[in-house]
Amino acid sequence: MTTRIGIALFDGAEELDWAGPWEVLAFWAQMFDDDVEVFTVARDNSEPITCAKRLRVLADHSWESAPPIDVLLIPGGQGTRPLLGDEAWRSWVLSVHEGATLTTSVCTGALLLADAGLLKGKAAATYWSSFDELLSIDDSIEPRPDDRFVDEGDVITAAGVSAGIDMALHLIVRLASVERAKEVKFLIQYDPQPPV
Amino acid sequence: MTTRIGIALFDGAEELDWAGPWEVLAFWAQMFDDDVEVFTVARDNSEPITCAKRLRVLADHSWESAPPIDVLLIPGGQGTRPLLGDEAWRSWVLSVHEGATLTTSVCTGALLLADAGLLKGKAAATYWSSFDELLSIDDSIEPRPDDRFVDEGDVITAAGVSAGIDMALHLIVRLASVERAKEVKFLIQYDPQPPV
Repeated sequence: MTTRIGIALFDGAEELDWAGPWEVLAFWAQMFDDDVEVFTVARDNSEPITCAKRLRVLADHSWESAPPIDVLLIPGGQGTRPLLGDEAWRSWVLSVHEGATLTTSVCTGALLLADAGLLKGKAAATYWSSFDELLSIDDSIEPRPDDRFVDEGDVITAAGVSAGIDMALHLIVRLASVERAKEVKFLIQYDPQPPV
Repeated sequence: MTTRIGIALFDGAEELDWAGPWEVLAFWAQMFDDDVEVFTVARDNSEPITCAKRLRVLADHSWESAPPIDVLLIPGGQGTRPLLGDEAWRSWVLSVHEGATLTTSVCTGALLLADAGLLKGKAAATYWSSFDELLSIDDSIEPRPDDRFVDEGDVITAAGVSAGIDMALHLIVRLASVERAKEVKFLIQYDPQPPV
């Protein structure tokens, strides 16, 4: 059975939050016969999405046109803030979560999971400067500022921006195997050597 | 004086090759008062670019509309192959290089630099499996398969896909300071911890 991974896009989404996992997961889908499909999904895909750093991208699907999503990934960025308290967003996240295997976030995408009530009583990661904001939405959350990502079973949250790459490799471990994750890591030459 | 960084896009460009540096460089441009501008540039920006993993993105500028480029970044991906030997591409790369401070590549973007003659007698990095192809274009190149990126002064080449993030931080070192690169690294939480 096909595993369908939907990466949510919205105006003001931070580029690497979604593009890092996109690369990892789409490389996996393209190069291996694991029956995985990865697509981007936005409330409305008829117009370009303008991301946090002004990159303009076209989503593959609208909420309506998207096939059932098994793994949802919600990126962060300043664009998360106008979506807090948005009932349509909450409903969409909850309805996808109910049918999904895994609901995940990168960076301040965790704020949207919290806003939908999905982090109640759970440990979570988010952007380093956003833990107060996260707890102001739901003070039952256990903050994990030192974790690259936190796996709470059906919900996984990652730290800021580039942490989505690490979490995406963990998703391959969860959904396939350590071996497959290592192969994808090798294919994207993810042997980081920050020069500073 | 504004430093203008142009990130080249073309059909079949590998997403993280350009999106990693985009995030690093655009974060720098947005958060600091260093008079840096980052934009994407394609031969034709009237239609969406379809990247290697099928992400569709709109370029900010066409070759014609782009302002003078000080730093050119050419990503890799399967889409580089149809551009080898393309005289219009060679001319564009050469004309930008002549006016630029730095010409850079990520992954198999190095093939396009070699095709334009810019790597003659120079050491270079590229995707791990593409060194033979690189040398078949120009056998005067010194292959550096163990380097994350190779700085040859006015030309810098990076290894595959995710190596562009490391190179982009090095670009900030070159164009600003180690301190600034560290600040951007902190802001994108680039403390990679590959889980496999």
